[in-house]
Amino acid sequence: MDRADCTALDADDPLAGRRAAFALPAGLCYLDGNSLGAQPHVVEHEWREGLIRSWNDAGWVDLPARVAQRLAPLVGADADEIAVGDSTSVALFKALGAARRLRPDRHVLLTEATNFPTDVHVAGGLAAALGDLEVRAVEPARLREALDDEVAVLFATEVDYRSGARHDAAALTRAAHDAGAVMVWDLAHSTGAIEVDLHRWDADLAVGCSYKYLNGGPGAPAYLYAARRWHEVLDPPVRGWFGHAAPFTFDVVWQPAAGAGRFVTGTPHVLSTAALETALEAFEGVTPALLDAKARSLTATFVTLVDERCGGEVALTSPRQAAARGAQVSLRHASAYALTQALIDRGVIGDHRPPDLVRFGFAPLYVRHVDVFDAVEVLADLLATGDWDRPEFHRRQTVT
Amino acid sequence: MDRADCTALDADDPLAGRRAAFALPAGLCYLDGNSLGAQPHVVEHEWREGLIRSWNDAGWVDLPARVAQRLAPLVGADADEIAVGDSTSVALFKALGAARRLRPDRHVLLTEATNFPTDVHVAGGLAAALGDLEVRAVEPARLREALDDEVAVLFATEVDYRSGARHDAAALTRAAHDAGAVMVWDLAHSTGAIEVDLHRWDADLAVGCSYKYLNGGPGAPAYLYAARRWHEVLDPPVRGWFGHAAPFTFDVVWQPAAGAGRFVTGTPHVLSTAALETALEAFEGVTPALLDAKARSLTATFVTLVDERCGGEVALTSPRQAAARGAQVSLRHASAYALTQALIDRGVIGDHRPPDLVRFGFAPLYVRHVDVFDAVEVLADLLATGDWDRPEFHRRQTVT
Repeated sequence: MDRADCTALDADDPLAGRRAAFALPAGLCYLDGNSLGAQPHVVEHEWREGLIRSWNDAGWVDLPARVAQRLAPLVGADADEIAVGDSTSVALFKALGAARRLRPDRHVLLTEATNFPTDVHVAGGLAAALGDLEVRAVEPARLREALDDEVAVLFATEVDYRSGARHDAAALTRAAHDAGAVMVWDLAHSTGAIEVDLHRWDADLAVGCSYKYLNGGPGAPAYLYAARRWHEVLDPPVRGWFGHAAPFTFDVVWQPAAGAGRFVTGTPHVLSTAALETALEAFEGVTPALLDAKARSLTATFVTLVDERCGGEVALTSPRQAAARGAQVSLRHASAYALTQALIDRGVIGDHRPPDLVRFGFAPLYVRHVDVFDAVEVLADLLATGDWDRPEFHRRQTVT
Repeated sequence: MDRADCTALDADDPLAGRRAAFALPAGLCYLDGNSLGAQPHVVEHEWREGLIRSWNDAGWVDLPARVAQRLAPLVGADADEIAVGDSTSVALFKALGAARRLRPDRHVLLTEATNFPTDVHVAGGLAAALGDLEVRAVEPARLREALDDEVAVLFATEVDYRSGARHDAAALTRAAHDAGAVMVWDLAHSTGAIEVDLHRWDADLAVGCSYKYLNGGPGAPAYLYAARRWHEVLDPPVRGWFGHAAPFTFDVVWQPAAGAGRFVTGTPHVLSTAALETALEAFEGVTPALLDAKARSLTATFVTLVDERCGGEVALTSPRQAAARGAQVSLRHASAYALTQALIDRGVIGDHRPPDLVRFGFAPLYVRHVDVFDAVEVLADLLATGDWDRPEFHRRQTVT
């Protein structure tokens, strides 16, 4: 496979034109959209001139609802099933707390032992606060056999943040329901990257992140999905005035807003949410199926090129079948940290996950097949020359 | 009192120079900083060029801690007693949940029946989730007599959002402690406006808002204060990876960060927090005592001028003693809504609180005494001419 093959793939890519929406610095292969999406061109706001009047005049008060409207088709949901706001961790706390109350007779929160740490922390905090819950964490492959009649809620992350392995979401949701449990999905590494279809999966609740593949900006607000069938009975543990049916009546008696809107708590983070609204414009008319096809093509191209050019110097830790992984590929290398720093130095931006993984994300809207080719060229060269093995790459202090 | 008197007061104002830090539109008397502060001149960020690298290169990872450092002297706290993030409502949920666990043998959350609605909603949601708590809401003047040995937590808002009435915070904290309760303050209408001294008050926990008098921008992140004496034992109900002692080790075992840092949950909202960091530069070297003196002078000027010029057409609902109110004055008028709209139309921006209040906020950093004078001139003219009584003012659709 050569660069011309990649150019040809780009020429056939129905999403090729979307790259123009992003302000990508020249000369970079940005393969870290799974950590932080690229910046769309325009981020504006109405704070300076409109001041408090912008709540009305610029529609700030409807901003989360407008974002929900744009987000809904990307996850197979209706807009009133989505609440935008908070960090993903806080949204997960709300989702788990509300889900738990749908099965008050059961006392186990079941999840993956390899889940993203915050998911396990959130569940542990909820269990410690409530006192009548325990967290059961098992290997992903053993979730089904752990689904017994004590399990109130199964919560899992569809795409593993390290390996990129992807659950069969519809099948696992069905298994949870068959066992009488409520299913909560963490879609942090799915939304905007691969096909998400909450209605088809029959999911109960879900949370997702908007600063990765949705390109909402660093720390952009999360979203929470609440299936319509639960709208009448869901009781969020964290209530607040923006989740009230009529916030500006200043009523101290709690009257939850209709639908998922009751999961909103405080005043929306307008600057962050406005950036997300702009970012979602780049997804206008993009179907989840298109995202999925592009992600599979990009990751397959990457795997093929690594196989062909990296001579066994790195080991694929992601599933080899494209359908079994997200928009992400991780490679194992004994000096993964230094290798990641050397790649960044040459303009190929992925990230390191301890202890020994180099992780690459392939955002379908702005990564091209030629970027994949160029990235593997750099990787192959570093591995062949050993140029990654310099003191400055081993020593560099980073946190992310 | 005439305009020259006000100009003279401005000439003597030690904070007069701070107004230049704000991008205030010409021709406005902006008296709504108690709802949304004005925009400082520069709001920049590093998303576009630095992308994921900015977590290191631009110091995003330390951003909440840097903001805490700037905020601490404004509230009489140390930086490691402050966690920045979330909405004020979510921060209050965390504070009340953690405070409640300091008094596990008691079962009442005591607060004001006239508290800001979200405070009561948050407490109600916590009580419903935990199952072993009840919320007791009484008139502010009856808080002390309601402090019995069932009260686990007393939480109150220092400055009432409608009347502007201000508690004696040190005395009420002492009363709570004498009754064996934990004291949690909501400082939404205090921070950046008047003197806050959490150490002197001996407060246990507190939350505050940064989009009002701190000028952090619409929906800017909240802060949570946790007194040092509780640091070893505080257990936040909402845990998350950014409150872990070492987030980037990706450890699923919960190890809380030192101090108030354990109250941080998810990835910080960087765009919103960066705007707040810039906004706090305008407070560099400003003491809480200076803020308090300016707020008293502005509100006293306003009350004097309204008394002199508005001929009893409006009634003062805020306390007449400057020391007994925050940086806010509210006037009662039978058609408060239309009057507020007529004022906005003439460039005097306050806001309406149902049913019959017009509310004015006097942000010490950018409101001048001449603004106060000009605002009362407009108010007096509207009241004298009846020009507020137009159909468009009664009918205008607004939410805030």
